[in-house]
Amino acid sequence: MVQLKTNLDLVNECDNFPYPDIPFAQCLPSESYFKFKLEGCIAALGYVLPEVAQKLSSSPEWERNNASLELTFKPSNTPSDPKEAAAHRTAVLARHLQNVREAKTFRILDGWRNELYPVYGPGRELLFSMERSASALFGIVTYGVHMTAYTRNAEGMKLWTPRRAPTKQTYPNMMDNTVAGGLSTGERPFECLVRESMEEASLPEDIVRTAHACGTMTYFYVRDERAGGEVGLCQPECQYVYDLELPESVVPQPGDDEAVDFQLLTVKEVQSAMAAGRFKPNCALLLIEFFVRHGIITAENEPDYLEIVSRLHRRLEFPMGQV
Amino acid sequence: MVQLKTNLDLVNECDNFPYPDIPFAQCLPSESYFKFKLEGCIAALGYVLPEVAQKLSSSPEWERNNASLELTFKPSNTPSDPKEAAAHRTAVLARHLQNVREAKTFRILDGWRNELYPVYGPGRELLFSMERSASALFGIVTYGVHMTAYTRNAEGMKLWTPRRAPTKQTYPNMMDNTVAGGLSTGERPFECLVRESMEEASLPEDIVRTAHACGTMTYFYVRDERAGGEVGLCQPECQYVYDLELPESVVPQPGDDEAVDFQLLTVKEVQSAMAAGRFKPNCALLLIEFFVRHGIITAENEPDYLEIVSRLHRRLEFPMGQV
Repeated sequence: MVQLKTNLDLVNECDNFPYPDIPFAQCLPSESYFKFKLEGCIAALGYVLPEVAQKLSSSPEWERNNASLELTFKPSNTPSDPKEAAAHRTAVLARHLQNVREAKTFRILDGWRNELYPVYGPGRELLFSMERSASALFGIVTYGVHMTAYTRNAEGMKLWTPRRAPTKQTYPNMMDNTVAGGLSTGERPFECLVRESMEEASLPEDIVRTAHACGTMTYFYVRDERAGGEVGLCQPECQYVYDLELPESVVPQPGDDEAVDFQLLTVKEVQSAMAAGRFKPNCALLLIEFFVRHGIITAENEPDYLEIVSRLHRRLEFPMGQV
Repeated sequence: MVQLKTNLDLVNECDNFPYPDIPFAQCLPSESYFKFKLEGCIAALGYVLPEVAQKLSSSPEWERNNASLELTFKPSNTPSDPKEAAAHRTAVLARHLQNVREAKTFRILDGWRNELYPVYGPGRELLFSMERSASALFGIVTYGVHMTAYTRNAEGMKLWTPRRAPTKQTYPNMMDNTVAGGLSTGERPFECLVRESMEEASLPEDIVRTAHACGTMTYFYVRDERAGGEVGLCQPECQYVYDLELPESVVPQPGDDEAVDFQLLTVKEVQSAMAAGRFKPNCALLLIEFFVRHGIITAENEPDYLEIVSRLHRRLEFPMGQV
């Protein structure tokens, strides 16, 4: 007999880094993490597990301070021009991470992507970029797009819901949002959405351009076994959220090896699958946000409404930026 | 020449209680406030200005601790049954506030409403209720409903926008949201919306019941001169947000003395009035939330998009509840 999850359970599975008034049993207290810093920049850019900080700080461009719990990246000979400085830091970091990868120090780098993710400073300036698969080692904020495509007729609303391929490195076989993807350095959210919609769901550009932006969803995820790689790594995330109402004649189709198929499910069917834990955790969170926005989850039917809506928009304690 | 306000300026005017990384010049640091507590309950229920704590603690059912900065309400002979306890606390507090009102200790109590607002505990239980006009003295969370009524045709979207009467105690002559109202103890959000829509805008019940819930907006407001009463009082607020698309034939009309008229304005006209500072601060915030949700404010046209969306959903540090 499976214990059904409430919507707040689903939020707690994805936004599971401690708050001042909410500890999470499976997670270290927030003050136990090393702050990931860049020399000359006052802000913490991410949180690093103590054993990860230990292993990362073996080369001279790193300084680990066990008293202040800071892991500081200090590449030498950084140019003064901001753009050149960012390129220099990116190159030094890439060499370091390539060495770490070859030494097989961290399992999470087995999922090497050859894709660069941006790291922003307090003035929202691009400080440098980092190989995507390393982002959780440093606990930096990552950015993505998530879109829900749905149909609506007299019988109600239905959502296009893919099943992840059994061969995916992360969360194989779980249910997913219609389209989702990560934002590389320099990529604009809407353009990323258009590209991913074609790649993942074979949705034509002219249709996807009718999608509308609905805000962002932010949460602070601490990785568990299902995510693969080391457990306890920090993953604060910001998702740009889009809705796309489709005519019933448009049917998403897998365009790459991400999904095995797309099912058109009623709201009830989606909610049952969420409660049964069949959705990838952050996709369940996005669906909660969608249902709140569309008046399906309301104060009248959800006792945790107030807590849930704030938790979907967590203010992250790191600088954030956008292209 | 008026300095135009950005959307982030408007957010900063309404969500202006300090964050760990954002001080606000016109506001005390958060650690300077007294915590409003109830004997036997661990959570702070609100924040109280030091001079207000001083004046409130003159009678025996109050204890002021200047070392721990706590103002604790400890009515004697509280019954053990939770409902009876709540009624007892409410009555003791009402007597105290009536005395304070008659002594003319606080200007804000000149706006006495004879309306009770709920105060919830950490288990979301109703602890007691408090006269509405006193809520900012104790800095408790207050709850309300806000609805945007709009029309949509080939030319685009227009919003129904009232102007507040020049006789209003607070924010006279400023622009407002179509319908807004506070939630008294025991009142359900949607029923409050139906009642207020008739009272304020003469909108018939059958039409208002087609409105849809879109989530909540939470922010922490520190009162300034325009709010009336003492400056620097804390007002953490939670607004239940609703959208109502109206046919062009339905025209809201003032039903009481809240508004002088309703204007049907284009998105551009509303945004210009916001930038000119013509909207009541929390109404500007609600409109920003509406424009984000409807894809009018996007990552592509708003440099502060990420900051704004989180700030519209601040997680308040006090227990919150709902009926």
